[in-house]
Amino acid sequence: MATIVGMEVLDVRFPTSRELDGSDAMNPDPDYSAAYVVLHTDGGPDGYGLAFTIGRGNDVQAAAIRALAPHVVGRAVPEDAQALGDLSRELVGDSQFRWLGPEKGVAHMAIGAVVNAAWDLAARRAGLPLWKFAASMTPEELVSLVDFRYLSDALTEAEALGILRAAEPGRVERIAKLEAEGYRAYSTSPGWLGYSDAKLVRLAEQAVADGFEMIKLKVGGDVADDVRRLKLARETVGPDIRVAVDANQRWDVEAAIAWMTELAPFDPYWIEEPTSPDDVLGHAAIAKALAPIKVATGEHVQNRVMFKQLLQAGGLSVLQLDAARVGGVNENLAILLLAAKFGVPVCPHAGGVGLCELVRHLSMFDFVAVSGDDTDRTIEWVDHLHEHFTDPAVVRGGRYLAPTAPGFSARMHDATLRRFRFPDGPEWTETPSE
Amino acid sequence: MATIVGMEVLDVRFPTSRELDGSDAMNPDPDYSAAYVVLHTDGGPDGYGLAFTIGRGNDVQAAAIRALAPHVVGRAVPEDAQALGDLSRELVGDSQFRWLGPEKGVAHMAIGAVVNAAWDLAARRAGLPLWKFAASMTPEELVSLVDFRYLSDALTEAEALGILRAAEPGRVERIAKLEAEGYRAYSTSPGWLGYSDAKLVRLAEQAVADGFEMIKLKVGGDVADDVRRLKLARETVGPDIRVAVDANQRWDVEAAIAWMTELAPFDPYWIEEPTSPDDVLGHAAIAKALAPIKVATGEHVQNRVMFKQLLQAGGLSVLQLDAARVGGVNENLAILLLAAKFGVPVCPHAGGVGLCELVRHLSMFDFVAVSGDDTDRTIEWVDHLHEHFTDPAVVRGGRYLAPTAPGFSARMHDATLRRFRFPDGPEWTETPSE
Repeated sequence: MATIVGMEVLDVRFPTSRELDGSDAMNPDPDYSAAYVVLHTDGGPDGYGLAFTIGRGNDVQAAAIRALAPHVVGRAVPEDAQALGDLSRELVGDSQFRWLGPEKGVAHMAIGAVVNAAWDLAARRAGLPLWKFAASMTPEELVSLVDFRYLSDALTEAEALGILRAAEPGRVERIAKLEAEGYRAYSTSPGWLGYSDAKLVRLAEQAVADGFEMIKLKVGGDVADDVRRLKLARETVGPDIRVAVDANQRWDVEAAIAWMTELAPFDPYWIEEPTSPDDVLGHAAIAKALAPIKVATGEHVQNRVMFKQLLQAGGLSVLQLDAARVGGVNENLAILLLAAKFGVPVCPHAGGVGLCELVRHLSMFDFVAVSGDDTDRTIEWVDHLHEHFTDPAVVRGGRYLAPTAPGFSARMHDATLRRFRFPDGPEWTETPSE
Repeated sequence: MATIVGMEVLDVRFPTSRELDGSDAMNPDPDYSAAYVVLHTDGGPDGYGLAFTIGRGNDVQAAAIRALAPHVVGRAVPEDAQALGDLSRELVGDSQFRWLGPEKGVAHMAIGAVVNAAWDLAARRAGLPLWKFAASMTPEELVSLVDFRYLSDALTEAEALGILRAAEPGRVERIAKLEAEGYRAYSTSPGWLGYSDAKLVRLAEQAVADGFEMIKLKVGGDVADDVRRLKLARETVGPDIRVAVDANQRWDVEAAIAWMTELAPFDPYWIEEPTSPDDVLGHAAIAKALAPIKVATGEHVQNRVMFKQLLQAGGLSVLQLDAARVGGVNENLAILLLAAKFGVPVCPHAGGVGLCELVRHLSMFDFVAVSGDDTDRTIEWVDHLHEHFTDPAVVRGGRYLAPTAPGFSARMHDATLRRFRFPDGPEWTETPSE
C-alpha cells in the first residue's frame, strides 16, 4: 500500500492586474493566484490541489495548507470513499485548527485544497477522471463522504440516500451523453468592467458565434454605464441569448433592488452576488423584490451551512458552487445534495486559476449521480490561464468537453510553477510588480 | 508626528491542554494561544494587539497579521477617529486580501488584531484607558469609524448617530459609576466539562461567595451528565443565581431543542452556541422553540453582517461580542450599535488569552457612550492567564473594576513572551508538548 510521504506547497501568482482581465466592481486589480499543493507518494502518481486567491495573502493561504501536513504526511494513499471520508472528517474535526474558522475562510480553503488533492490522487490511482471516479461510487459510499452536521433540519442522511438512489438508473446513459455532447457553458469573457463598449460588443458577438447560450456582464460600478452596457449587450445578442449580470457584492439590499430595477428592462437572467455573501436574509429580500430575475451566489459562500440557509430562505435560485472555497469534494457533495433537495440548479463559479478545470468534474458528477438533471445548468467559462494546466478545460460549441485524463485536473506544468512562483519566479523578478 | 516603524508578530502558546481547564464539548484539549502583534513607533509608546486561537494554526494566524505590515509600517501613529477610521477602511478594503474572507476567519481576525493594536497605541498616546478614550469621541466621530456597508437595511448612519446622541447626556455620571462600582461579571470557572461533580459544586459555591450573580456550565457531551450537573449546580446556588449553559456549537437544530428541553426544569438562563455560529435561521428556530430560555452567541460570529441577521431574525437575545474575532474596535462599535438598535443586551465572550482584558473596555464604553444601559449586561470572567498581562483584568465582588492604565490592555510581560513563544520558548522545549 502506497503512502503519502510529503506535502509541497507553492505560492503561484499570475500578474493579471497588468491587464484588466478579471476586473470588476469589487476587485479592480486582481493577480490571479493559487496556493498549490502536491501530495508526494512513494509509489504511483502524486496528487495535486489548489486554493484560488487574487494575490496578496496567497502566502497566508499557503501557510494554512502547510499547517495541515501532520494530518496527511505518513498517511496511506486514499483509494476509496472510506479513506476519503476519514481524511475529510479528520481535517474538519481538528478541534484546535477549527477555531480559525470554524469551517470558513483561509483555514477552510486550506482543507479544501488538501481534500481535493487527495481526491485527485485517488482518481489517478483508479485511472479515472474525477467525475467518473466519484460517479462509480454507490449511493451508500457517497453518503458516507458527507458531514451532515448542521444540515439535518434541511437534509437528513436518509433523504440524501434517497436522492442518490433515485439517480442510479440512467447513470450509464448520462455518462454516454456527456462523452458525446459535453456540458453547457456560458461566457464571462465579454463582460469585464475594464473593457470598452466596442470590445464588449465584439466579444459578445464572438460568444454567440462560438455557440454560447448565455453571456455575463460585470455591473455595479456606475448605474448609467451599466444600463448602457447591458442595453448594448442585449441588442448585440438578441432576445434569445441569456444575459446574466454580476455585481460582486457591491450593494446593500436596497441599493441592489433599486439598481437592478433600472437594468430590468433589458431582461437580465440572473443577478449574481448582489450583496454580501454572508447576508442570507438580504439575498432573500432581494430575490423577492426582483423576481422573476433570478438571484445567484456561491463563489464566496463559505460552507454548506450558509448554502443550506440560502436555500431555506429562498435567497438564491441559482447555486454557484465553487471548487476551491469550501472543504473540497466532500462538502461540495453535501452542497449538490442540498441543491437537489431544494430543486435549485447548480451553475458553478469558474474562471480564476484552475476553477474551470475543477468544476467541470463536479457538474458532470452531479448530472450522472446526484441531480441527474442538466436543465438550466451551465458552467462559467473564462478563456484564461488554461495553458498552465496539464489537463486544461476545453470548450467547443459552447460546451465543456468531458475530461478523460485520470484525476481532478489541478496539476500545473512544471514550467509554469518555475516561472510564476512568487516572489522568486522570473515573472516577478524580471518585470516590475505593480 | 510619530511614525509606526515596525511590526513584530509572535506566536505565543500556553499549554492549557495539560490540565482540563477550557475543556468543552467541541474543544476537548485547547492550548490557549495568541498571535501577538506589536506596533513599534519612533517616539512614545508602542501598540499591542492579539488574535486569540486555541493552538494549532496560531502560526497561520501570525502569518496573516504579518501580511498586513505594508499597510501599517511607515504610517503616522493614529491619534484620532479620522486616522483610526482610515486604517480600518484601508485594511478591510484591500481588494486582494479581501478574497481570503471576505471579512471572516483568519484574514479578518488579523485585521482585528492590527486595528486593536492601533487603538491601543492611540489610547496610550492620549493617556487614557481605551474605554475612556473611545468615550471621549463625539457621536459624529464615532459614526465615522463604522463601515455601514451591508448594514443599511437594519441600521443607517443617521440611526446610529441618533443612538449615540441619545447617550450623550449622562456620560460623565456613568463614567463615575463605573469607576465606583465596576461592571457586572459572571463566572465560567465552575463549569468546564472535564471537572468532577465535587469540583463543580465547590467552585459554584465559591462563585456565589465571591459575589457573582451568574455562573455558566458547559454542556453537550452527554445529556444525562448535563441533567445531573445542572441539577447539582442549581441546588448549589439556589433559585436566585442565574445559571447559563454553553453547548459550544455541539448540536443540530432539532437536537438543541430536544436536549435543552431536558435541561429546562433547572431554569437555565441562556443557552450559548447551541449550533453552528453560521446558522442564523437555526438560531431563530431554536430561540422560538425554547423561549423564555434565551439564546446567546457571538464568540464565533464572524462579522457585523452575521450579527445583523441574528438580530433581524430573532436568533439571539444575548449578544456575545468578542474582542478578537471581528475587525477590531471599529467593527465592534458597529455591533454595539446594532445591539442598541435592536434593544438586545451585550454580554461579551471572554476567557481565552487576554479577552477579559480587552472586552471590559468595550462593555464600559458601551455603557458610557452607546447603549447607556447595563441592565442584564454581564461580562464573562475566567480566572486564568491574567498574570501574563501588564494591565490584567481584576474582578472584585463579582464585578470587573474599571481599568485605569492607558491603552487597550493587550500587552503581555516580556518574560511571558520569552517563556511561551512557540515552538522555541522554554515552556515548549523543556516539557513534552501533548
